Amino acid sequence: MMVQVDLNCDLGESFGAYRLGADAEIMPYVTSVNIACGYHAGDPSVMRQTVKLALGHQVSVGAHPGLPDLVGFGRRTMTITPQEAYEMVVYQIGALWAFTRAEGARLRHVKPHGALYNMASGSRPISEAIAEAVYRVDPELVLYGASGSELVQAGERIGLRTAHEVFADRSYEQDGTLTPRSEPGAVIHDREASVSQAIRLIKEGVVRTRQGGDIHLRADTVCLHGDTPDALASAKELRSRLEQAGIALRRVGS
Amino acid sequence: MMVQVDLNCDLGESFGAYRLGADAEIMPYVTSVNIACGYHAGDPSVMRQTVKLALGHQVSVGAHPGLPDLVGFGRRTMTITPQEAYEMVVYQIGALWAFTRAEGARLRHVKPHGALYNMASGSRPISEAIAEAVYRVDPELVLYGASGSELVQAGERIGLRTAHEVFADRSYEQDGTLTPRSEPGAVIHDREASVSQAIRLIKEGVVRTRQGGDIHLRADTVCLHGDTPDALASAKELRSRLEQAGIALRRVGS
Amino acid sequence: MMVQVDLNCDLGESFGAYRLGADAEIMPYVTSVNIACGYHAGDPSVMRQTVKLALGHQVSVGAHPGLPDLVGFGRRTMTITPQEAYEMVVYQIGALWAFTRAEGARLRHVKPHGALYNMASGSRPISEAIAEAVYRVDPELVLYGASGSELVQAGERIGLRTAHEVFADRSYEQDGTLTPRSEPGAVIHDREASVSQAIRLIKEGVVRTRQGGDIHLRADTVCLHGDTPDALASAKELRSRLEQAGIALRRVGS
Amino acid sequence: MMVQVDLNCDLGESFGAYRLGADAEIMPYVTSVNIACGYHAGDPSVMRQTVKLALGHQVSVGAHPGLPDLVGFGRRTMTITPQEAYEMVVYQIGALWAFTRAEGARLRHVKPHGALYNMASGSRPISEAIAEAVYRVDPELVLYGASGSELVQAGERIGLRTAHEVFADRSYEQDGTLTPRSEPGAVIHDREASVSQAIRLIKEGVVRTRQGGDIHLRADTVCLHGDTPDALASAKELRSRLEQAGIALRRVGS
Repeated sequence: MMVQVDLNCDLGESFGAYRLGADAEIMPYVTSVNIACGYHAGDPSVMRQTVKLALGHQVSVGAHPGLPDLVGFGRRTMTITPQEAYEMVVYQIGALWAFTRAEGARLRHVKPHGALYNMASGSRPISEAIAEAVYRVDPELVLYGASGSELVQAGERIGLRTAHEVFADRSYEQDGTLTPRSEPGAVIHDREASVSQAIRLIKEGVVRTRQGGDIHLRADTVCLHGDTPDALASAKELRSRLEQAGIALRRVGS
Repeated sequence: MMVQVDLNCDLGESFGAYRLGADAEIMPYVTSVNIACGYHAGDPSVMRQTVKLALGHQVSVGAHPGLPDLVGFGRRTMTITPQEAYEMVVYQIGALWAFTRAEGARLRHVKPHGALYNMASGSRPISEAIAEAVYRVDPELVLYGASGSELVQAGERIGLRTAHEVFADRSYEQDGTLTPRSEPGAVIHDREASVSQAIRLIKEGVVRTRQGGDIHLRADTVCLHGDTPDALASAKELRSRLEQAGIALRRVGS
Repeated sequence: MMVQVDLNCDLGESFGAYRLGADAEIMPYVTSVNIACGYHAGDPSVMRQTVKLALGHQVSVGAHPGLPDLVGFGRRTMTITPQEAYEMVVYQIGALWAFTRAEGARLRHVKPHGALYNMASGSRPISEAIAEAVYRVDPELVLYGASGSELVQAGERIGLRTAHEVFADRSYEQDGTLTPRSEPGAVIHDREASVSQAIRLIKEGVVRTRQGGDIHLRADTVCLHGDTPDALASAKELRSRLEQAGIALRRVGS
Repeated sequence: MMVQVDLNCDLGESFGAYRLGADAEIMPYVTSVNIACGYHAGDPSVMRQTVKLALGHQVSVGAHPGLPDLVGFGRRTMTITPQEAYEMVVYQIGALWAFTRAEGARLRHVKPHGALYNMASGSRPISEAIAEAVYRVDPELVLYGASGSELVQAGERIGLRTAHEVFADRSYEQDGTLTPRSEPGAVIHDREASVSQAIRLIKEGVVRTRQGGDIHLRADTVCLHGDTPDALASAKELRSRLEQAGIALRRVGS
C-alpha cells in the first residue's frame, strides 16, 4: 500500500473589509482546509465563499473553531472551563456545518485554532470537552490535533477518527511537543531541512528533536501555513517533493 | 377535526453574566420556542441550556436569528443586502442546529428576530434570501413569519412549510400589518380584548383592524412575549383560555 | 492672503492581525488624518501607533467615529436615535483623545465615518446630536462634514469651528450632495478632471454638477482616499498640483 | 485628625437591553464608583447615565477598565502583553473621561476590573503598563489596586497617588493576598465579622489572616459589591457601622 498523507491549511481567515491569506492560490495544493468560524477570524460571507472554493477543488472541508478573541486572532490563551470549550466548539462547528450543508456537501473534520489548539494539546479536560463537542455534533467527523497530544488521545477514547498533525517547518522537543517560538531554532527556515523532516515523519514516523534524539510521531496530516509571504511557494514545493518521494496526497477519512 | 394552534415564545436571550426573560417559567406553557443564536442575544452556554430546557418540556426548538447588533438587541434596522441576510441566517441556524444535534434532538423551525423579522415582512428580496437560507440548510424546517407577509410567501414559493404568526396583544392595520408602536392603540393592554382577538384569529382567521374593518389573517402560531413583567401571567391566561375555547395547542409540523 | 486648504485622509483602519491602508506612505502628503476609534475599524494598538505616526509628521490628529459595525466597516446605515449617535460619538472621541494625550499632543478635529457621515449629512437631529457630542467633549475641536451639509450647519449653530469637506474624485448633484455611487459618473476616474475640480473648488468655491450647472460649495478640506490601490499616487499628484496652483496646504484651525 | 476611608463600588455594568446591579440604590452609600467602559460590561448609554447619576450624588467618578471579553464579563485571565494592557487601559480611560467631560465634571480615578485587576496584582510588567497608561493620560488620576499589590506599587513608583483597596468580606492570606475563592473560608459570610475586619483594617491597618496571624495592610478604600442580592443591605450596614465607629467617609484625593 502506498504511503499517503493529508496536507491541511487554515483558510477563510478574512473578515469584513479585511483580506488575509492567499486562499484561492493555496487551495489547489492542499487536500483539506480548516475554515475559521467567526470567533477568531472569518465571517458568514467569508465562510460561504471559502466553503464554495474548497468544494470546487474537491478539498475536504473542516471547521476551525477558535477562542472568542477577534482582535487577538484567537492566539491569546484564556482561562476557559471545559464546559465553555465544549460550548464554543459546538457553536462554531454548527455554523460552518450549515454552509457546507447549504452547498450540498459534507463537513468532514474539526481542527481547533491557535491558543485553543495549544491549550488542548496539554490539557486533558479541555481536550475531552472538545472531543465530546465534536462527537456529539457528528461522530463521523475527524478530529485533527497535534500528533500524540491530549487532544487526539481524547478523540480516540471517545471513538472519533483522528488525524495526527505534524509540522514540516517547526522543531520538536524530546517529549514530542513543538519547540516554543520563544526558543532559538523553533522555526525551520531552511526549506530543504523542512521538506526532509516532513518526508521522514510521513515515511518512518520519526523526527529528529532539537535535543538531537529521534522520537516517534504519527503523521496523518501536515500543516501548511497560508498567511506567510512565501505560503504559496512553500505549498507548491512541499507538495511536489512529497509526490516525488512517492507519497500520495489524500485527505483523511472516506 | 379540532382547531389547533401553536404558542411560540422568544427565549434564550440571556448573555454572559446577564439574565433576561423567565425561560424556565414560560417553557411549560408554550409549544415552540425561538432560541437566540448569539447575534442579537444568547451565547453558546445559554443556547445549550435553553435547548436542553426546551427538550425536557417536549417543546419544538427553533432558531431565532437576528442582526449582528448585540448592544441594540437586534432591534435597529440595518441596510443589509439579501446576500448578507442569507449568510447571517445560514450561520445562526447552523450554530443552533449543533446544540440540538448534540442533545440528540431536531431543530424544527426558524423565526427571524426583531428588526430582521420586520425588514423581511416588507421586503421580497430579504425574505427570499432568508427563505433560501432556511431551505438550503434543511428543507424540513418550518419558517415562521408575520401572517401574510413577504417572508411566509417567500417560504411557500421555495417549498418550505410556513407558520403564519399572529399577535394577541397588538393591533392590526387594514393591510394586515401590525400597527406601528408609535401609533396610539398599537399595544392592546386589555387582557380580555387580546384573548378575544387571539381566539377569533385562530377560529375564524379574522381580526378587527384599528380602522374598524375585518380582515382575514391565517393564524398558525401565536406569539407570546417572554421578557415583560407579566409574561408568565399572560402565558398562563392565554393558554388556559384557548383550551377552554376548545383549541388544541400543538406545535406546527410533525 | 494665500489661498489654503487642508488635505485629510481616513487612516488607522487596520484591526488586530488585519492590515488595511498605506498609512505610513500617505502620511507625508496630508495635513490632517481621521483615525478610526475601534467601532467600525481600528483597535487600541492601531490607534496608538497611528497617533504616533501622525504626530511624527506634524499632521493634525482627528477622531473618526463610526457605527458599531466592525464586520460591515461602518458602511451600513443603522436606524439609531440621536441620543445613541451622541453617546457613540462621545465614547469614540474620548478613546482617541486619550491616545493623543498619552503622547503629549492634542486632538484637533472630529469627522464621522461612512454611514454615520452620510446619515448626518441629511439628518438635522443626528447632526445636532453629533455636534453636541463634539462640543461637550471639547468646544475647541473642529467638526469636519460634507460641505454645506446638515452636519456642518449643526456644528456652526452650536459654536464649533467647522471644516467643509469636498471631494476631488466624486461628482456633485445640483443640490450640493454627492452623486450616489449607484449612478453613472459618480466617481471621477480621470485624474486631470478630478484635480481640476479640486482646484476650482478651493480657489473659486464652485463646482460643475453632473447636471451641468455651477454651484457654490465651501472647500476647507479635501478628502483623500487611503485604501485604494492608487491612493499614494493620487495623494502625491493632488498635493503637487495644488502647490503648483499656488494653494497652501495647511490644517484647519490653530 | 479623624480617621477616614473611601467606600467604592463597581457600577455601570449593564449593557444594551441587559440590566445588572442596583446602581441607583447603592449610589447614596458610596464615596466613589468605578464605571465599566464597554470592554467587559457597560455601553456608551450606560456610561453616560451612570456618570450623571454619580455626579448627582457628589460621588467620585472612576474608570473601571477590563479585558475585551464581554461574554466572560472580564473575569477570564487572558495572556496579554504589557503593551496590550497599556493600550486597552488608555482606550477605556479616554472613553469614560469623555462622558465626565461632557457633563462638565472630572474623572478622578482608575481601578482595573476582574481578571485584569487580579493579573496586575501579581505581575510587575502588567502593573507598570497600567500605571503608565493612567499616568500618561492624566497624572492627577488616583490608581486603585489591591492593598500592597504590584499595581499600587507600580503606581507609586511612577508618581501616581494610589488608593490601597481592602475587602470587608474576603479572607486574607499571610502574604497579604486574598484567599482564592476555591478555598474554604474565602468569603466571609458573617456580617459582623466582615464589619469588624473592615473597621480594624481602617483604624489599625491590620487584618487577621486565614492562617491566624496578623498582618499590616493599608486601607484607603473598601470595596462594596454592587451585584449581589444583599448589596444594598450590606452597603447600608457597613456605612452606618463605620460612621458609628467614628470613621469619616471621604473619597480619596482632592
